[in-house]
Amino acid sequence: MANNPSAEDSLIARYFKPLATDPGAFGLVDDAAVLAASGDDIVVTTDAIVEGVHYLATDPPDTVARKALRVNLSDLAAKGAAPAGFVLTLALRSKDDSWLRPFADSLGEDARTFACPLLGGDTVSTPGPQMISITAFGRVPKGRMVGRTGARPGDRILVTGTIGDAALGLDVLTGGTAARALTSDPVARDALVSRYRIPQPRNAVAQAVRDHASAAMDVSDGLAGDLTKLCAASSVSATVDVTRVPLSAAAAGLIGRNVSCVETLLAGGDDYEVLCTVPPAQCDALIAAGQAAGVAVTIIGTIVAGHERPRFLDGQGQELVLKRLSYSHF
Amino acid sequence: MANNPSAEDSLIARYFKPLATDPGAFGLVDDAAVLAASGDDIVVTTDAIVEGVHYLATDPPDTVARKALRVNLSDLAAKGAAPAGFVLTLALRSKDDSWLRPFADSLGEDARTFACPLLGGDTVSTPGPQMISITAFGRVPKGRMVGRTGARPGDRILVTGTIGDAALGLDVLTGGTAARALTSDPVARDALVSRYRIPQPRNAVAQAVRDHASAAMDVSDGLAGDLTKLCAASSVSATVDVTRVPLSAAAAGLIGRNVSCVETLLAGGDDYEVLCTVPPAQCDALIAAGQAAGVAVTIIGTIVAGHERPRFLDGQGQELVLKRLSYSHF
Repeated sequence: MANNPSAEDSLIARYFKPLATDPGAFGLVDDAAVLAASGDDIVVTTDAIVEGVHYLATDPPDTVARKALRVNLSDLAAKGAAPAGFVLTLALRSKDDSWLRPFADSLGEDARTFACPLLGGDTVSTPGPQMISITAFGRVPKGRMVGRTGARPGDRILVTGTIGDAALGLDVLTGGTAARALTSDPVARDALVSRYRIPQPRNAVAQAVRDHASAAMDVSDGLAGDLTKLCAASSVSATVDVTRVPLSAAAAGLIGRNVSCVETLLAGGDDYEVLCTVPPAQCDALIAAGQAAGVAVTIIGTIVAGHERPRFLDGQGQELVLKRLSYSHF
Repeated sequence: MANNPSAEDSLIARYFKPLATDPGAFGLVDDAAVLAASGDDIVVTTDAIVEGVHYLATDPPDTVARKALRVNLSDLAAKGAAPAGFVLTLALRSKDDSWLRPFADSLGEDARTFACPLLGGDTVSTPGPQMISITAFGRVPKGRMVGRTGARPGDRILVTGTIGDAALGLDVLTGGTAARALTSDPVARDALVSRYRIPQPRNAVAQAVRDHASAAMDVSDGLAGDLTKLCAASSVSATVDVTRVPLSAAAAGLIGRNVSCVETLLAGGDDYEVLCTVPPAQCDALIAAGQAAGVAVTIIGTIVAGHERPRFLDGQGQELVLKRLSYSHF
């Protein structure tokens, strides 16, 4: 917070001070915040979203705020960490109250919902696209962060929620085939758009992931690509039964009508679900913890020995050819 | 680090993996880093710099990298914290090796020099100006972060280094009066430009600040404005003897020639020195610690009771009228 002349100070006081509920934030009037660790490890993750790249200029400010925080909360969930707070860097083109007010209010609502208070930040002006960069902190007992390297042959592959909705939501918003196919189905359309704009981070199952998963990450760039990364980090391969990949009713409907295909959904971005590997004996416990928290957890495949890319098999056991594995914002 | 498709992964591996020397960074292949706290408090600070706002598009990439990290290291120094690491968000217009290579190499050099390793980050593309946002972490013994609220009447006001050089350096780079006055003095010109481009954070005196200061902050937006903020946070006022404010030879020369005036230097930005208040009995110890570390520490005034703005007195005891208190990037 070094660059905080009066204009920035008053903006911070007006919009963001109410979000700084943690005593370590000092009401945002100091240069730094204090994060009490109390013997835990602090898990640190950082993700930025850029207007026109990670969100659309037409997305409402309240969903932009939620997305900015939730993409980071999703990382914490996958690492098995309990949210502890976040810092915010906001690059603004203008100080328009009609944008900042709903942005700050929704950010504050999510900060409360997920028990992740604002600890500090920096507000800068930019002549370019707006950008929100968040660094979020979580706590895990010492040495207990869930990494990417622990997957072992025989572990089952599990995923939370449903896959591919956000990619279809973006397709709806940008006038793609899904938009045309859903003109007369506003319920499905809104459901998919909402999944693109407002990720549902799975913090409710973070502790169960920590207790049971051998490896985990969040699915943000496409299930196929992200599983490939996890397998590479663990020096293993995988087999996925594509018929088991959980789909929403809206997504299943579009596949049934051949508007979309499962390959596209497997490589679509912005799912923000937890992908994890779990020893067979512990799968039931994780699934039960998900049920208790209202989060679907589905077994979609198995880790196998080897260094090949994961194989995605259809209902006939035939391997799908994926033209691309993931969605690149870069 | 959720948005890390292959293009970003290879960029990270190529340029930034060598900087991730801390085991908690997991070689930048995980979604998150671990910061072991071991009973200390973690101090968190975040500062972003935007091309054309906080640095010039013509500034070399190596100095941009150093500035981005050092403005955060300066906050840690003023809070009495030992650097522990940082995360980096880089918004890039292009992936030009001739910019990224010196940027990453210099960032790595500074990370080593200041014992502040890269823990993670996010690289995003932007069609707008480049931006570097850094969140830096430091450690202090539990409850020992130096705040802004502890200044008491009678405490002396101390500042490290010299004041106003960076503002004059910016004036040189943007063709202002200082540029014209120094055409035939490349040594002074280069010294001032270097102070603008490459802050000298005072981490070498961080522990002495923690041991002796009642309140502290870094001077980033102008000494006058920053002291005003510190006094407001502590509910006190101050008297500064402007003749004691430490100036470099180059700055003193420009004032002697009436090219610049001290009021401008007091309100100039980008000093990145430590401003602190210290009980009289402890001033010598802090000054001695500075001497041992090669950092000048100068008494410039006294904290007084009251809620008025700090008064800046000239050699005749007359109050200077400051048209503005600080430099606003916003």
